[in-house]
Amino acid sequence: MITVLAGGVGAAKFLQGLAAIRPPNEIHVIVNTGDDAQFHGLYVCPDIDTILYTLAGLGDPERGWGICNDTFHCQEALRRLGEAAWFQLGDQDLATHLYRTRLLREGANLAEATEALRQQMSRRVHHPLPHLIPMTNDPAPTRVRTSAEWLSFQEYFVKLRQEPEVLEVDLSSAARLQNGPAPGVIESILTADAVVVAPSNPLISIGPILAVPGVREALRTTRARIGAISPIIGGKALKGPADRMMASLGFGSTAAAVAELYRDFVDVFVMDQQDAALRPEVESKGMQAIVTQTVMTSAGSKEQLARTMLGALRDDLR
Amino acid sequence: MITVLAGGVGAAKFLQGLAAIRPPNEIHVIVNTGDDAQFHGLYVCPDIDTILYTLAGLGDPERGWGICNDTFHCQEALRRLGEAAWFQLGDQDLATHLYRTRLLREGANLAEATEALRQQMSRRVHHPLPHLIPMTNDPAPTRVRTSAEWLSFQEYFVKLRQEPEVLEVDLSSAARLQNGPAPGVIESILTADAVVVAPSNPLISIGPILAVPGVREALRTTRARIGAISPIIGGKALKGPADRMMASLGFGSTAAAVAELYRDFVDVFVMDQQDAALRPEVESKGMQAIVTQTVMTSAGSKEQLARTMLGALRDDLR
Repeated sequence: MITVLAGGVGAAKFLQGLAAIRPPNEIHVIVNTGDDAQFHGLYVCPDIDTILYTLAGLGDPERGWGICNDTFHCQEALRRLGEAAWFQLGDQDLATHLYRTRLLREGANLAEATEALRQQMSRRVHHPLPHLIPMTNDPAPTRVRTSAEWLSFQEYFVKLRQEPEVLEVDLSSAARLQNGPAPGVIESILTADAVVVAPSNPLISIGPILAVPGVREALRTTRARIGAISPIIGGKALKGPADRMMASLGFGSTAAAVAELYRDFVDVFVMDQQDAALRPEVESKGMQAIVTQTVMTSAGSKEQLARTMLGALRDDLR
Repeated sequence: MITVLAGGVGAAKFLQGLAAIRPPNEIHVIVNTGDDAQFHGLYVCPDIDTILYTLAGLGDPERGWGICNDTFHCQEALRRLGEAAWFQLGDQDLATHLYRTRLLREGANLAEATEALRQQMSRRVHHPLPHLIPMTNDPAPTRVRTSAEWLSFQEYFVKLRQEPEVLEVDLSSAARLQNGPAPGVIESILTADAVVVAPSNPLISIGPILAVPGVREALRTTRARIGAISPIIGGKALKGPADRMMASLGFGSTAAAVAELYRDFVDVFVMDQQDAALRPEVESKGMQAIVTQTVMTSAGSKEQLARTMLGALRDDLR
C-alpha cells in the first residue's frame, strides 16, 4: 500500500501518474480539508474535488478546479438573486456539492461522503479511483493573516486571488480537532509500504495535514520510507502562491526550504533538474536527494515522476 | 387590498391579469404549500415558484414549471451520481432553491424566505411583484392514496405523472399545524376589499389552504365579497388531474361540483361559457353565477377575466 499526503492540483497530477503504474486500490490519499468552506449552504471540498475530478478524467487541467466544459447558469442566477458569487461553482460541479451536503446532513461523516463520491465517480468512469481519506471529519478551516486582516482561506485564495502578502497561517483548527484525524489516516501512514508527500504547497496544503494530531508522529515512526516532491522549482511555484508564502513567512522560497520543513520525517527528497545545485544543501539535512524532471506536462511525465519516486523508496515498487 | 387563494399554473395566469389592472402591492396571494418537498436537501416550493417565475416573466408557459430556456446540467450530473432525478430542477431554478434553503437553514421562516425571493425577483425585473404569503410556515405535506399505496404529493404528481386514480387526499398535516397559518394569512382575508379563489385544483391546491386552521372561518366571516373561478371547463381541467380527481373522489367533475366545494363562503362563481347550462345549478347554491370566457390564452384574456371577477365583487374595483 502506498499512502500519499495531498493538496489539490499538483497532488492530483502526481496521483494520475501513480494510479497509472500501481493498482488504484493500493493507493491511499490523505487529503487536506483546510480549504473546505460552505457556499450557498453547500459543503465544498476543493482539494478532494480536484483530486476526484482529475483522477476521473473530468477535471479542467487549465483552471485546476471544477469540471471541464462546465456551465455556470446556476451561479449566474444566484448572482442575480444578490448572492455573493466570487467562489465559482459550475452546474455539474454543484451536483457534487449537493450530493455531499445531503449525505452530511443525513448524518454521514466527511470520510463516508467522500467514499460515496469516489464510488459513484469510479462507477461513472468504469475504473476504480484510489481511496481518498479526508485528513479529518471535523471542520478544520485554515486562516491566513495579511497585513490588513485575518481571512478565511477561500477569501484569500479565490476572492483576493492570493494577492495580499501572507504574514501568518493559522492551523490551530487542524491542531485542535474534536475527533482527531479521520479513521484510517494514522493507520494508512503506519502500515504503508511507502509514503509520498505530493508536490503541494507545504504551508497551506500539506501543513494542515501535518498539524492534525498524530500525523507528524506517525510519519516519524512509520517503518515505511517517506519521499517528498518539491512544489518549488527554480524558486518558483508552478501554480499558486507557495513561493511568495514561503518567502513572506521567512522560510525562503527554494526547494531546500521545502525539504527543511519536512526534515524530521522525509527520507527521499525529489527536486527538479533546475535545482541540481541545491543537492548538497538537501543532503546535509540527512535526506537522499533525487534530481529529476518534475514538471508534469504529459501522462508520460506524470508516470515517470511516480516511478522515480516509488523506485527511490522501495526497489520492488519501481 | 385584494387577496387571492392560489395554487400553481392557473393561479399564476390569473395573477398576471390581476397585476396588470391593479397595483401589485395591493395584491396579497395566499399560496398552497402542500406540494412543497425536499430534493437533494433543497426545499422546493412548486406553487410559490410557479407564481414568482410567471409574474416575473421568467416562467415556462408551456411546461407550467421552472424557468424558460433553463438547462439541466446539474440534474444530469446528479443522475450520474446515482441520485433520483424524476423531479426536474433546472440550473437557474436551482439557484432559487439554494437561496431559499440557505435562508431557512439560517433561521428564516418560509414567509421570510418567500418575501426575500419576491424582493430579489422584483429588483431583477424592475417591477414589484404582488405579496406572496405561504399558507403556513410549517411543513404541511399533502398525501394522496391510490389503489396501491399512500404517496407524497410529488411522487403522485411528477414521478407517476398523475396517472394512478386518487382515492383519498390527506390534508391532515395542513389541518394540524404546530404554528398555524403564516402571519398575514387570516388578516389578509379579514381585511381584504375582495377575495378571489384562483382557478386552481380545488382538492389539492385550494383544499390545503382551506384546511389550515382559521382560513375557512375567516372566509365565512370576512366582510369582503368572495369570488371563485372554476378550473373545470366543460367537465375537463385545462391542466392537471383536477377533473379525474373530482370524479374519483365522488364529487363529480363539473364546474358546479367545484362551486359546491366552496358553497359556504363564495359569493360569486365565475365559470366558462361552455358551462352556461350549469348556471341554475350554481345559482341554486346561493351564489351569483357569472358566465364568461375563462380560458386564459393571452395577456388580454387574463386581464379581462381579472376585470370581470373584480367587477362582480366590487363596482369600484372594476
